[in-house]
Amino acid sequence: MTPVSGSEHQQTPVSGSEHQQTPASGSAQVPGRTGVTAATGFAAAGVTAGLKPSGNPDLAVVANLGPEQHAAAVFTTNRVEAAPVTWSRGVVADGVVSAVVLNSGGANACTGPRGLTDATTMAASTADALGVEAGDVVVCSTGLIGTYLPMERVTAGIAACVPALSTDGGAAAARAIMTTDTRPKEASRVVEGPSGSWTVGGMAKGAGMLAPGLATMLVVLTTDARATPDVLRGALAEACRLTFDRADSDGCMSTNDTVLLMASGASGVEVDAAELVPGLTAVCAELAAGLIDDAEGAAHTIAVTVRSAASEDEAVEVARAVARSNLFKCAVFGRDPNWGRVLAAVGTTTAAFEPSALDVAFNGVQVCRSGAIGEDRSLVDLSGRDVVVEINLHAGPAQATVWTNDLTHDYVTENSEYST
Amino acid sequence: MTPVSGSEHQQTPVSGSEHQQTPASGSAQVPGRTGVTAATGFAAAGVTAGLKPSGNPDLAVVANLGPEQHAAAVFTTNRVEAAPVTWSRGVVADGVVSAVVLNSGGANACTGPRGLTDATTMAASTADALGVEAGDVVVCSTGLIGTYLPMERVTAGIAACVPALSTDGGAAAARAIMTTDTRPKEASRVVEGPSGSWTVGGMAKGAGMLAPGLATMLVVLTTDARATPDVLRGALAEACRLTFDRADSDGCMSTNDTVLLMASGASGVEVDAAELVPGLTAVCAELAAGLIDDAEGAAHTIAVTVRSAASEDEAVEVARAVARSNLFKCAVFGRDPNWGRVLAAVGTTTAAFEPSALDVAFNGVQVCRSGAIGEDRSLVDLSGRDVVVEINLHAGPAQATVWTNDLTHDYVTENSEYST
Repeated sequence: MTPVSGSEHQQTPVSGSEHQQTPASGSAQVPGRTGVTAATGFAAAGVTAGLKPSGNPDLAVVANLGPEQHAAAVFTTNRVEAAPVTWSRGVVADGVVSAVVLNSGGANACTGPRGLTDATTMAASTADALGVEAGDVVVCSTGLIGTYLPMERVTAGIAACVPALSTDGGAAAARAIMTTDTRPKEASRVVEGPSGSWTVGGMAKGAGMLAPGLATMLVVLTTDARATPDVLRGALAEACRLTFDRADSDGCMSTNDTVLLMASGASGVEVDAAELVPGLTAVCAELAAGLIDDAEGAAHTIAVTVRSAASEDEAVEVARAVARSNLFKCAVFGRDPNWGRVLAAVGTTTAAFEPSALDVAFNGVQVCRSGAIGEDRSLVDLSGRDVVVEINLHAGPAQATVWTNDLTHDYVTENSEYST
Repeated sequence: MTPVSGSEHQQTPVSGSEHQQTPASGSAQVPGRTGVTAATGFAAAGVTAGLKPSGNPDLAVVANLGPEQHAAAVFTTNRVEAAPVTWSRGVVADGVVSAVVLNSGGANACTGPRGLTDATTMAASTADALGVEAGDVVVCSTGLIGTYLPMERVTAGIAACVPALSTDGGAAAARAIMTTDTRPKEASRVVEGPSGSWTVGGMAKGAGMLAPGLATMLVVLTTDARATPDVLRGALAEACRLTFDRADSDGCMSTNDTVLLMASGASGVEVDAAELVPGLTAVCAELAAGLIDDAEGAAHTIAVTVRSAASEDEAVEVARAVARSNLFKCAVFGRDPNWGRVLAAVGTTTAAFEPSALDVAFNGVQVCRSGAIGEDRSLVDLSGRDVVVEINLHAGPAQATVWTNDLTHDYVTENSEYST
């Protein structure tokens, strides 16, 4: 069970008939060109700048080779935003982005004026090496909050990275942005539209969501479709709403979350938002699924689906309340289909429902019927990775799914030892 | 550090000059009369009805012997409320309560019509044994959600408990309502007022809060002051607002939380709300501190104090956001003064503040100054049980403290194995 697979596949806007219009990746792709370099008009690279104690790659650049350099982005809504977010908001405001430079090994968050200077320096160094404007370079950082970046290493890393840019460098870039991720996340789709074929791809790091997010989530999406900045903004907002915004690993919101979409226009195929959304959403859904499946310390991937809600917003509210209940998340870790904790979480919401009408199923077994005891809980098997919790509010026609993780000993370990 | 002790003592409405008007317990008390039987006019008992697998005491009754039987209560705001809550709301509506019957070993929550019948039967059995009206008997249950109570054992337990009622039975009652508590919680104060001396006492179980609450919190408060139901309602709301409502162990809200206040009038001293609040709040604060200090699986008691907020509500909003951040709570478990996670939580709120003005101190060491790196974090010692996190918003005159716990391996263990 992931946000785009299995039985849930039929229930999300990224699936079903719309999905059929978005052929799976592979058929028209060039071998080796994956993730952010699946689409034409992009080059990427990842290098080791020495920012991580592990010595793993930690700096990446993705450049838009054109002919167009349109872009849109979504940033964290955390009011305590990191310096690179502050910088990058300004960069994308005019809808033109030439490149993005990303580092792991340090978030450059809560670093005051010096942090903003450092983010600016990262953009300027990248721009110099590429021969573009600093004001067209987005900066993304991830890692510990409250420490300064070692700027000599960062600028040396940029100087090494830009010459390494390659149209099949997507995989290297995806690896360089990992922090506690155990594997890089890439996805792409080739879309056969009425006016021709185009590609959308992307990479992601960090298990989390836009608002809120666990570890920082950084996502870079690329397409060779031709699209105006307004089209990109609208399509990105819709794709995020249905994917990253519904993946909620631990309810915490990062200071650095960024989702950047760049369009090169290299396919020559112009698209509007309606054409762009399905393929873009499919890529975002695959990346979001990868984040939840690889979330820090998680033992289960949990889909909380709320059915028969009065509105989609209320379905999301209820699903999110359950997804954020520590008691519920501990129960799933313990393979306990504790529907009482589900109902206790549902009861904290303002959604329309009658408590005596609520139904809850764990992996298809309806353990709660009409707000009371249903089928025998011993029939539920939670030994696998994937858990589907279905809640029926009997209050209307809407539904939504939020993806989350269980609360485990490994989560506590990873997050109590992370910075010490 | 607890809600009523240490340096924080100076910062809460339960302390300082008001507290001076509320002499500590002991001086005028009868030895052995503790908790709910510290005040005159009350009898209590606790027995083993066989509801818990452990064989520990699990059923208690507290009776108001009069001459008055006025009462007020605060219940969970969870819309999925347990049957005893539904029953008890009706009982207290007229401001008259003769007794309360409480059981551990089963919450009688999410049990449908049968559950409401069972709660009613508990009240009727208790009323019959006491010779009072069933409609004047409050019922409280705690334990697993989603299982029926073994009513034969419950009614037999009531039949055994009522004859055991004693004016020094407070300690037995406090022991019988424990679930995962490691120790009973009792408190009392003798108040020397202008018209004479009166006493307020109480007992509590479960580490949590009213809204929301961790494990179910049940609190029974008694006083021999004379007070109208309206006075009791107003004073109880104020005392809860400053104590139980600011103890937030894990952000989860129970289906059964109940705080009941009964007044016997046996002292003959009539009080108004202004006279009642300080002593009542002191007792509630001591009980709340006991709950947080004994919360499931916790290794640290954390006071999150927000200073210089624009309003008290905003101070509480910010403190609560920090208190509910799993990343922050894991960091404290790891003895890591991770102020970046504090700022990330503060940034999710709507309170007035400038990110670049935020200060954060851990146990007196100001590790974050003006939103950026402050004193050396290695100066912070988090090896003790008590942690004080102070956040200065530099936005106004108000402040508030929320008490919480860290997120530990033991929390995960207790809450993943609780019902299996």
